[in-house]
Amino acid sequence: MSRLFKEQGVGIVQMTYNTRNLVGSGCYESRDDGLSDFGHEVVAEMNRVGMLCDLSHVGAQTSRDVILASKKPVAYSHCLPAGLKAHPRNKSDEQLRFMAEHDGFVGVTMFPPFLAAGNDATIDDYVAAIDYIVNLVGEERVGFGTDFTMGYGAKFFEYLNRDKGYARQLTEIWDVKFPDGLGSIADFPNLTAAMERAGWSETKIRRIMGENWLKLLEAVW
Amino acid sequence: MSRLFKEQGVGIVQMTYNTRNLVGSGCYESRDDGLSDFGHEVVAEMNRVGMLCDLSHVGAQTSRDVILASKKPVAYSHCLPAGLKAHPRNKSDEQLRFMAEHDGFVGVTMFPPFLAAGNDATIDDYVAAIDYIVNLVGEERVGFGTDFTMGYGAKFFEYLNRDKGYARQLTEIWDVKFPDGLGSIADFPNLTAAMERAGWSETKIRRIMGENWLKLLEAVW
Repeated sequence: MSRLFKEQGVGIVQMTYNTRNLVGSGCYESRDDGLSDFGHEVVAEMNRVGMLCDLSHVGAQTSRDVILASKKPVAYSHCLPAGLKAHPRNKSDEQLRFMAEHDGFVGVTMFPPFLAAGNDATIDDYVAAIDYIVNLVGEERVGFGTDFTMGYGAKFFEYLNRDKGYARQLTEIWDVKFPDGLGSIADFPNLTAAMERAGWSETKIRRIMGENWLKLLEAVW
Repeated sequence: MSRLFKEQGVGIVQMTYNTRNLVGSGCYESRDDGLSDFGHEVVAEMNRVGMLCDLSHVGAQTSRDVILASKKPVAYSHCLPAGLKAHPRNKSDEQLRFMAEHDGFVGVTMFPPFLAAGNDATIDDYVAAIDYIVNLVGEERVGFGTDFTMGYGAKFFEYLNRDKGYARQLTEIWDVKFPDGLGSIADFPNLTAAMERAGWSETKIRRIMGENWLKLLEAVW
């Protein structure tokens, strides 16, 4: 099955999306007893065909199990640190360190509801969040993970915000406003400028802007 | 969703089949952390439309959660006691009592791999297994649950014996021989005779033969 998806171009798969699925539990599920037996087979097959296991929306125990089960690096492709704001979708220092200790990768999102300032967050708040994670895992394991969802309307977000697309509502997140000067991937030059403002070296900027991602995907794919 | 199935005539649903699904964990799954949040919604909806929750192939913790969550009686529709043979598919005395204490029902299967004598089991072994359960839960909560799978070939059993129909093999059960004189539902008169041989009263025989089932389904449907 994984092979078929891979042939169709799917190179990254979220192991669970917020709730329980056949593989494990999501970050909004009440209980998480980890990767299912079937999930272990899925990880092995994704390793074999070269697909990246993404743990952004995955529960803590399932994340841990995938990190341990995978023979290739895995990632939180888009997350923020719980150290800056407590939220079920954010990752604790311990989780971020565990990811790094097992050769994993952290993509950092600027999704405002997961930042302390919420919809008032600025582009500099985002850069500070990246730095928070760099301080934990090093500048060679970090990249962007925008969480931009471009070209979708209210119906799509209603679908995303319900378990299985139609069951219980999962969050109160409806109104999302990305930081000024960071509304789409066309605005990335503003991000480079913010990194320069933060005093980052060119090497660090290049790594976070994309070099680290390319290295990761080369290793996994 | 449940309403749609109910309208199509589905009155009993196995909450999980042997392994993990969106609702909970099965009896062959390594870990069972119980009913998922979605599963709680499924039980509520099945209660509402009048579908029986069946826990025969369900893991211990998920079974417990469903028994506690359901506002209507639930059932092990076809099982055997672990007290007569230790097996992941068999139910412990504690589980059987817990079912009875919560107004539940136990259908007893004569599936030979779950009986101590295996394929050598006789029709009298089956009646003894029913009595074992009657002694635990009383004669008003017990019925047949044959587990006859008639008219299917090897391909179907290969499907049943793999997680999701195609993943890992779950059991070594391939060769199944039902007791002599008990090969299909056409043989039920032999079962009545065996019950009489065991010295059962007519009331008890009538209850186990079907009256208890009818009472249960009336209450749930």
